[in-house]
Amino acid sequence: MAHELQTAVLGATGYSGFELARILTRHPRLKAPLLLRREGSEGGAASLDELYPHLMGQGAFALEPFSWERMSAAGVELLFLATPHELSRELVPEALRRGLRVVDLSGAWRLKQAANRAIYTFKDADATVAAELDAEAVFGAPELHRDEIAKARLVANPGCYATSVILALAPLGRAGLIDQDHGVICDAKSGVSGAGKTPTAKVHFCEVADNLSAYSLLHHRHLGEILEQVGLKESQVQFTPHLLPIPRGILSTIYVRLARKMTADEVTGVYRDFYCAAPWVRVYANGVPQIQYSVNTNYCDLGVALAADGRRLIVISCLDNLVKGAAGQAVQNMNVMYGYGEREGLE
Amino acid sequence: MAHELQTAVLGATGYSGFELARILTRHPRLKAPLLLRREGSEGGAASLDELYPHLMGQGAFALEPFSWERMSAAGVELLFLATPHELSRELVPEALRRGLRVVDLSGAWRLKQAANRAIYTFKDADATVAAELDAEAVFGAPELHRDEIAKARLVANPGCYATSVILALAPLGRAGLIDQDHGVICDAKSGVSGAGKTPTAKVHFCEVADNLSAYSLLHHRHLGEILEQVGLKESQVQFTPHLLPIPRGILSTIYVRLARKMTADEVTGVYRDFYCAAPWVRVYANGVPQIQYSVNTNYCDLGVALAADGRRLIVISCLDNLVKGAAGQAVQNMNVMYGYGEREGLE
Amino acid sequence: MAHELQTAVLGATGYSGFELARILTRHPRLKAPLLLRREGSEGGAASLDELYPHLMGQGAFALEPFSWERMSAAGVELLFLATPHELSRELVPEALRRGLRVVDLSGAWRLKQAANRAIYTFKDADATVAAELDAEAVFGAPELHRDEIAKARLVANPGCYATSVILALAPLGRAGLIDQDHGVICDAKSGVSGAGKTPTAKVHFCEVADNLSAYSLLHHRHLGEILEQVGLKESQVQFTPHLLPIPRGILSTIYVRLARKMTADEVTGVYRDFYCAAPWVRVYANGVPQIQYSVNTNYCDLGVALAADGRRLIVISCLDNLVKGAAGQAVQNMNVMYGYGEREGLE
Amino acid sequence: MAHELQTAVLGATGYSGFELARILTRHPRLKAPLLLRREGSEGGAASLDELYPHLMGQGAFALEPFSWERMSAAGVELLFLATPHELSRELVPEALRRGLRVVDLSGAWRLKQAANRAIYTFKDADATVAAELDAEAVFGAPELHRDEIAKARLVANPGCYATSVILALAPLGRAGLIDQDHGVICDAKSGVSGAGKTPTAKVHFCEVADNLSAYSLLHHRHLGEILEQVGLKESQVQFTPHLLPIPRGILSTIYVRLARKMTADEVTGVYRDFYCAAPWVRVYANGVPQIQYSVNTNYCDLGVALAADGRRLIVISCLDNLVKGAAGQAVQNMNVMYGYGEREGLE
Repeated sequence: MAHELQTAVLGATGYSGFELARILTRHPRLKAPLLLRREGSEGGAASLDELYPHLMGQGAFALEPFSWERMSAAGVELLFLATPHELSRELVPEALRRGLRVVDLSGAWRLKQAANRAIYTFKDADATVAAELDAEAVFGAPELHRDEIAKARLVANPGCYATSVILALAPLGRAGLIDQDHGVICDAKSGVSGAGKTPTAKVHFCEVADNLSAYSLLHHRHLGEILEQVGLKESQVQFTPHLLPIPRGILSTIYVRLARKMTADEVTGVYRDFYCAAPWVRVYANGVPQIQYSVNTNYCDLGVALAADGRRLIVISCLDNLVKGAAGQAVQNMNVMYGYGEREGLE
Repeated sequence: MAHELQTAVLGATGYSGFELARILTRHPRLKAPLLLRREGSEGGAASLDELYPHLMGQGAFALEPFSWERMSAAGVELLFLATPHELSRELVPEALRRGLRVVDLSGAWRLKQAANRAIYTFKDADATVAAELDAEAVFGAPELHRDEIAKARLVANPGCYATSVILALAPLGRAGLIDQDHGVICDAKSGVSGAGKTPTAKVHFCEVADNLSAYSLLHHRHLGEILEQVGLKESQVQFTPHLLPIPRGILSTIYVRLARKMTADEVTGVYRDFYCAAPWVRVYANGVPQIQYSVNTNYCDLGVALAADGRRLIVISCLDNLVKGAAGQAVQNMNVMYGYGEREGLE
Repeated sequence: MAHELQTAVLGATGYSGFELARILTRHPRLKAPLLLRREGSEGGAASLDELYPHLMGQGAFALEPFSWERMSAAGVELLFLATPHELSRELVPEALRRGLRVVDLSGAWRLKQAANRAIYTFKDADATVAAELDAEAVFGAPELHRDEIAKARLVANPGCYATSVILALAPLGRAGLIDQDHGVICDAKSGVSGAGKTPTAKVHFCEVADNLSAYSLLHHRHLGEILEQVGLKESQVQFTPHLLPIPRGILSTIYVRLARKMTADEVTGVYRDFYCAAPWVRVYANGVPQIQYSVNTNYCDLGVALAADGRRLIVISCLDNLVKGAAGQAVQNMNVMYGYGEREGLE
Repeated sequence: MAHELQTAVLGATGYSGFELARILTRHPRLKAPLLLRREGSEGGAASLDELYPHLMGQGAFALEPFSWERMSAAGVELLFLATPHELSRELVPEALRRGLRVVDLSGAWRLKQAANRAIYTFKDADATVAAELDAEAVFGAPELHRDEIAKARLVANPGCYATSVILALAPLGRAGLIDQDHGVICDAKSGVSGAGKTPTAKVHFCEVADNLSAYSLLHHRHLGEILEQVGLKESQVQFTPHLLPIPRGILSTIYVRLARKMTADEVTGVYRDFYCAAPWVRVYANGVPQIQYSVNTNYCDLGVALAADGRRLIVISCLDNLVKGAAGQAVQNMNVMYGYGEREGLE
């Protein structure tokens, strides 16, 4: 283990960033990551364990102000951005110019089609550069883009909901098994950490507990990622997120009409083949996954149920929105980028 | 208010029965209900407030052993059955023979078609009588069958999930607005009290909390009620229940392809017209309901979202599974049966 | 029922205010209450059911800007203040000057001793008037001050924690049964609604769920009320609040050394005698109350356990912080002030 | 790392046993543990991941019927018992006779004084042997008995509540800083997994959610462990457990009168000195711990608050009842018994 990689995290104080810092700190291939703070954020805490006493006694978690020079002096090679979309959009061109590789956890670079990107209303300083990077960025689903990720300068880590749905649909989509005329329904349910750490009325305990609510009906930001990765059109997918009274975890119930009659075993076989080399996807032989099975792990769990007609299929997809849906997948991407084992640091 | 009705409840110790006893005790038109206990149940508690200290100081809640004679002596006219399906199946013929009217909260008498009823595997003592009563029983959705309920001897109170879905689909179904070729998806989520009071592994706190699970995929008991009431075939409806980590409340997310292009206002108008005389259905003009809005009330809340194509419709339906989904609806049925105001005793 | 009282509520948009508006609207002795909004609050919602869709279809809940003239024109006799302490401190002198009676739900007027009041750092416009009103205000625990409340112009509705502890200790304290040399421990646990509706980091779902935390150790605001009402000194009482992962409800576990050896039945007898005319306190003959028994009611539930030595006593006290701990008790105070039945409007 | 230890777990299907199997499977010093099932338990599942799909893809978790011969053939040196008290009482003599070392997670061997043991009503086959083992067994709190544990044949892993309270009181007790005349109050709150996996009415989701309840007032089984380990008499300690609506975690709020006036820093210093060599106890310099900080870790977190009088002390103690309160501590004991690093396998 000659070389140890120096990484940096900007935005370690949010839920995903904290999870990321925790994973990186224990990763056997890495030096202690540099934890960087945006100016003015989190009241200027001097270390992450001031904000998360969970970390006490588990190492040094000093938070430093963001600075290109500091990163350069420390020999940072890989920068993780757990920042707002707009800030990622602003920082990535400079980071690449300085020779850093980047895994961006925001939605800034995930979308290839301008129509899908419109929902974000980015204001790019240099539209030409931005367009080049939109084209260059690799969508960071290792199960779909492993080879490109290995060589990528810029990896756009997928959205949490999007990961859950894309991994459930990709095997069918790529095999031409989705009846596209009929359309796909994605009824997704997520824990509250997916909404971020900022205290808003929506995440007040009394608004979430003992409750369930649907939101962003027909226009959630993650829809574009799903369309592009599965190869469907907006008119063919309905995606409905719901807010669950739990801290973390996503379960997506996905309804597909198969393009041809199949048996349940055939369908399971399609998934098993597709993910035979994917260490972080588990395909259930019997029954369907529940949220609790994958929480606090990097797994995406998939299970299916097929109606007697052999056409109406239900796919259940579960994952932890902060791990496989964010920080864990970011580390998995790093593992692929640097030729480490895909499970390293994530057990 | 010359006459006060004498009612009895068999099975008051379960969650629905307790809710029912609580509502009936406060109902302005009623004498104190007779609370009856099945032999051997609940360790022979002498009164309901031994089991539910919530009731202390709010009246007499004596529990007596079930007996036809006791009911007769007390002048019972209406019997509520909050009993297992099999027991309702057994008791109802005798109850009607004795001149009682019955509101049955179980699934025993809800289904008209033998194929749908097959899921219950009833063993009827007298198949002819049972068949007659299957035909005679009125499905107790007052919004759909008010006139028949008013005259009914036997009202089959709908299932909680079924109520949620049927009230969401009936206005469209009766107006021929559902594209039946395309099919309907009902993705439903329920609190734990819907699973009953018996302690099982499934309802252990640690199995439910921080979790979400789908169950009974493609074959839940309530599907038959939905099909019969909305007028759809099994191949046209997918119903997927999920267990939420909350004590009570149901939210159903229902996906329909409209038979013709409409505007959202038109759709809302269809619902408003259909429920203009229904005091316990609320149609949202803007936005969609959440579970917490209807918990502890007898309301079923409905709201819609329509895609830009004017065809892909999402209906959100919320209610409290123990009130509108069980005890409250049973009392609403009683109100209709006896000509009381439909809101009486339920505010 | 010749006369119907006109009330007004300022601050109906918070959790306590909403609960209050809901109770008052259904109260049989009242006209529809005037719901008043502080300038700039809640984005200028025109009615309470915009903020709480729960209320849809249950009456008119128009919100109007606060105005003395509007209240005068409407014939308001009684003003409920569900406002920040400082605002109550400012408005009450003027309200009384204008002939209104006031039930104040804030902490502004609860404390008689300047030392206890110091924690609030009020800035009174007229210190003399404020001092007079401090003396005149009646602590609104009807179980302790029924006669004074009946005649009061200004009733200071107790704090939620304080109600829970005071009702548990008063019977012992007034009978001289507390060993004052030994001191009293009050270990209290509250649901999140007690922290108010403002979204803060502390009430973010992810900070509360799956968690328990102690806070304000040794210096919570409600300690002063406890000391004054029970007749103890600061050195004799320890009060430790904890934040529970539930929306509502308080359970206080209170440890007392009795001044003399007693039996459990004797102790229960002391409570039963003390509360024999109190319709909203329930004393448990066997066992101890749980939070769920009193949630959504105006009851304070009390139960005791006594060690074999006949001296070490544990009192468990439960109530709903938004009802008996706030809005319900405010209505109970109104009932006493106007000679209504103490249970009216609160069943 | 020449030698790899062969362990076995009897009772791996319960919550503690599952946690234990999971930790042991990843422990760097161990061979895969033998997972043994009591006859008739858990429907004869063939492997642990049938019961806990969480484990899928993480190794082999075959469950085998309990057999001394099987253990012998496999070369088991250390047996973990996650069994009912009575069964541990029965099996341990034979296990020791066969040369195994044992870490017992039940309450069978924790108590030295017959009076404290009386609560368990054990029926020993050979009272003499049992008495010898009662004397020989080492109470498995490594922070208190590290040297004896290192040499022990039989380690009695402490109760979850007991661990929480003992670690909070031992530093004061051993330094003579507890005012014993005054007595100690331990107000403890635990998540539901502490009650075990058996579905009972008490752990039904609807009985626990939105609730808090006190239980076993004045006579909980863990009191004896606390008395013996801290060196106090029954008349000097009150221990009150409460059931929290969370899956896991304990917070104990402990009230002590110090034997002499101290400063908060002095008290913190006493704890820091006492635990200077204890890698799994964290003493907070400022503020107090919350449950979420230690959940899913093997830490016991301690923090204090001291009244202005320098005598009235509150200690807050938090831990995860399944880790530091059960399986994690059992592994920590193993680490001490075999000379491994005390943190190994527990990070």
